[in-house]
Amino acid sequence: MLDPAALRQWELVLGTENVIASEEALRAAAQATFPVRQSVPAILRPATREEVRRCLLIASHFSVPVYPVSSGKNWGYGSGVPVTDGCVILDLSRMSRILDFSEELGYVTVEPGVTQGQLFEFLRTRNSRLWIDGTGSSPDCSLVGNTLERGFGHTPYGEHAANVCDFEVTLSTGETIETGPARFPGALAAPVYRWGLGPSLDGLFAQSNFGVVTRMTFWLMPAPEYFQAFFFRCDSPGGLPALVDALRPLRMSGTLRSAIHIGNDYKVLAGIRQYPWTETGGSVPLTEEWVSGFRKKLNFGAWNGSAGLYGTRGQVAEARRLVRNALKGKADKLQFLDDRLLELAGRYSGVFAFLTRWDISRALELVRPVYGLMKGVPTEQPLRSAYWRKRNPPPVQMNPDRDRCGLLWLSPVAPAEGRHARALAEISSGILLRHGFEPMLSITLITDRALICVISITYDRDQSGEDQRAMACFEELRELLAAKGYLPYRLGIQSMGSARAEGPYGRFLEGIKRLVDPAGILAPGRYGVGYTEPQRPSPGLRSVQA
Amino acid sequence: MLDPAALRQWELVLGTENVIASEEALRAAAQATFPVRQSVPAILRPATREEVRRCLLIASHFSVPVYPVSSGKNWGYGSGVPVTDGCVILDLSRMSRILDFSEELGYVTVEPGVTQGQLFEFLRTRNSRLWIDGTGSSPDCSLVGNTLERGFGHTPYGEHAANVCDFEVTLSTGETIETGPARFPGALAAPVYRWGLGPSLDGLFAQSNFGVVTRMTFWLMPAPEYFQAFFFRCDSPGGLPALVDALRPLRMSGTLRSAIHIGNDYKVLAGIRQYPWTETGGSVPLTEEWVSGFRKKLNFGAWNGSAGLYGTRGQVAEARRLVRNALKGKADKLQFLDDRLLELAGRYSGVFAFLTRWDISRALELVRPVYGLMKGVPTEQPLRSAYWRKRNPPPVQMNPDRDRCGLLWLSPVAPAEGRHARALAEISSGILLRHGFEPMLSITLITDRALICVISITYDRDQSGEDQRAMACFEELRELLAAKGYLPYRLGIQSMGSARAEGPYGRFLEGIKRLVDPAGILAPGRYGVGYTEPQRPSPGLRSVQA
Repeated sequence: MLDPAALRQWELVLGTENVIASEEALRAAAQATFPVRQSVPAILRPATREEVRRCLLIASHFSVPVYPVSSGKNWGYGSGVPVTDGCVILDLSRMSRILDFSEELGYVTVEPGVTQGQLFEFLRTRNSRLWIDGTGSSPDCSLVGNTLERGFGHTPYGEHAANVCDFEVTLSTGETIETGPARFPGALAAPVYRWGLGPSLDGLFAQSNFGVVTRMTFWLMPAPEYFQAFFFRCDSPGGLPALVDALRPLRMSGTLRSAIHIGNDYKVLAGIRQYPWTETGGSVPLTEEWVSGFRKKLNFGAWNGSAGLYGTRGQVAEARRLVRNALKGKADKLQFLDDRLLELAGRYSGVFAFLTRWDISRALELVRPVYGLMKGVPTEQPLRSAYWRKRNPPPVQMNPDRDRCGLLWLSPVAPAEGRHARALAEISSGILLRHGFEPMLSITLITDRALICVISITYDRDQSGEDQRAMACFEELRELLAAKGYLPYRLGIQSMGSARAEGPYGRFLEGIKRLVDPAGILAPGRYGVGYTEPQRPSPGLRSVQA
Repeated sequence: MLDPAALRQWELVLGTENVIASEEALRAAAQATFPVRQSVPAILRPATREEVRRCLLIASHFSVPVYPVSSGKNWGYGSGVPVTDGCVILDLSRMSRILDFSEELGYVTVEPGVTQGQLFEFLRTRNSRLWIDGTGSSPDCSLVGNTLERGFGHTPYGEHAANVCDFEVTLSTGETIETGPARFPGALAAPVYRWGLGPSLDGLFAQSNFGVVTRMTFWLMPAPEYFQAFFFRCDSPGGLPALVDALRPLRMSGTLRSAIHIGNDYKVLAGIRQYPWTETGGSVPLTEEWVSGFRKKLNFGAWNGSAGLYGTRGQVAEARRLVRNALKGKADKLQFLDDRLLELAGRYSGVFAFLTRWDISRALELVRPVYGLMKGVPTEQPLRSAYWRKRNPPPVQMNPDRDRCGLLWLSPVAPAEGRHARALAEISSGILLRHGFEPMLSITLITDRALICVISITYDRDQSGEDQRAMACFEELRELLAAKGYLPYRLGIQSMGSARAEGPYGRFLEGIKRLVDPAGILAPGRYGVGYTEPQRPSPGLRSVQA
């Protein structure tokens, strides 16, 4: 039970309107896209770092666990729901100031409430030449929140954690740490140089519960002179490894500088339409025969990829030549697209089909948002696929938590080699279909050497028994993949325990936890740290802070 | 005084031949390129991680501070000399195994004793298409040692700390931590994916004394189809800012993917020859008039830059066009160079001068090693400049410590903007000349947004009073630059105290130090951590490890 005295103190700091305790709001905050049992006793909405600091001090004093959330849109991984029961949510969405910006050096410094859409608008209204790296989640997603989960996007800055620096971290003790050069007052390199002097701390605060990140600097890419996307597909399910092995050298040589995304047929179909309830007479899962029929009808492949080419017209032309060579005999179709062609295609889709021998009209709805993402334009189109198994179409204002979309994401990371891509696809397809779910997969060459496979279990939470079946499927798959060496790059709140370390590594993490959060009140259990008895701080360790 | 019982125990572990206590060896180990007072009571030479572990346990037991050194060639920053007095040196040069290697994924996993030259030979004998990123220091420098100091090189992988992962760290408690995915046994992404799951620890172990890094994975770039270097110069001392502002956009657009190095006239001159003692009649410092005369005579500029173009012939041709455009009106000379031209130039330097209107013959000696570095070929040529002020020429086997070369490096980091480059050049030139030293400067665009200015104070330790003058000059410059916001990216052992943090940041670092090194025996004082009373562990904190 939450101490009413704690609530009163928070109200004194934030005003009653920013301490939410209405049953409806609390119930909504405890909703994810899969079953959770955690209850949320209150939501705090600080607007400044000083308010965050005072909220944390009160929480420490009353030993109330607090769970920071930037925008709470961590769909598929637990949304904004705390890992453990009884956490007060620290909703940082009111901290939405853009604190610093440089067009020349290409960076922006933001608070955790700043969303992709907000930054996009900020840049647009200034006629900035800088692009953001957006995720396919929603324009309302927090930049900081996504980056702290090590999310990724679609441009050359797609590995978000590698393109940020200069964190301000507020600890539960009320103290503040600035990472990188900023710990020296007036250090000019603070927003442009990652490491600082001495041990570098940035890495500690991602996928972590060591502190509340109240400021972060994002590096932004300058718009290239010319941009062209390419889309490719492979009609044979067995064609994936060759694609990966053909593309990795282009990534390693610097010809392709952005993430390359390859989705399977189920993934594409869920992006185009909802489950064919009528056609299939309601039977699930959608068999491979059915999806193969849709492939022919709707003109997509067993594997469907996209990536961007960024540079001068000359650089893009040369990259195009190299992509063509690399994919020869591996992709059944390869299509390049730029602003002009996209505009024409929209206006004259029939003529376009005639000229290119590719009927793009049906694909345009799917292509445009992906194309935009590669240019830093956020979209909520991909979110529609969360409604794949629902009986009603997605509403205008989508909210997968509220709408009881079932969505579980499992995202193993592996070396960027064809054989690993194949193993991930085969293992996950087999298990998902056996459990009655469609294997929607995307494979992203996230860096020169690593790929991340995002496996979606998408279902309808309103169907009785599906929650349980989905969770069982997820857990079986997670365990099998881990046993084979395919560990996830990121976890949902239901699997945080799997990150818990034993031995020296675990003792080290728990030791740091006690240094920075002696009361153990900050997001206990997140990424396996601070699980046990989070409310009882070890008094012997308080001295470290003294 | 070193406890003889400790020595005996180390001898039992390592054999007497690997516990060095000869006066001559200890005196040599306590030599740097500037005055130090530290004495070294013994040198331990473990060959395996297990030996490192046992050496550390003995050191902890006897409360003897231990200072790990990979190759000890950290010239200009203190060589292999410990930060504090009385440290036993843990010489890791015998740990020289190459543990893992992948041609396809482009990585190599090494122990700390592996040198640039060793890796170069390893790749050459395998006909590997992979290039290393070497520093201009010496082929005998340790890869791990340089990277842990956040050193940088000359290729697209020039920011070393950004191109490694998968550390194995041996703590003074005898425990081992593996960073990144490797903490999960069998994790396939260990050598290719940096972050791991949960908080990421790599950053903690660079510029640090938290543990002994006994393994590291280096990413290696595949050789491009075609490589071309370019060299440019600017004859006006005021031309630097325009160069930096012209090159940064090329870096940010991905056209230039490697570090860009710009050296001033003094720097180039010291690379070509020793101090003109005869010509100047022995007066120091070399005035700007003198150096300007050498510029004309030896055909170099006030500012002299180099960088590499990597890609297909088409990509390099387009990059060449962009470099030409960007430097038009900013560089007085711009010369592109590839393997063929370099070979021809060497063979027919007269004809070459006729064809290109550039007399390359004198410059070839300087150009070749820089050119090689951009292709991953280590060299010790730049080391010759450490002998600039010596009266005798550099010996065949150079050893700046032994040869009493005076060398102090100060290396502030700043945003990659012309105005910062100018400020750094003006401030440091003024102070160095006033103190009687030649301002040898290099400005490196180390990332898309940051530059590092390496300022060398080069002198002759055999000249009475020069040690003191150099140290005074260094300190004045360091303080002034820091006051103006130009903090160093790296420190010499004489300035480690300047990294010492107060407040929450300092308490956090000291807290981590006590977690991982409760006996306080590991490199006390390094980067300002663990300075005070390193021999007295806080007993209250031992419990954290228990």
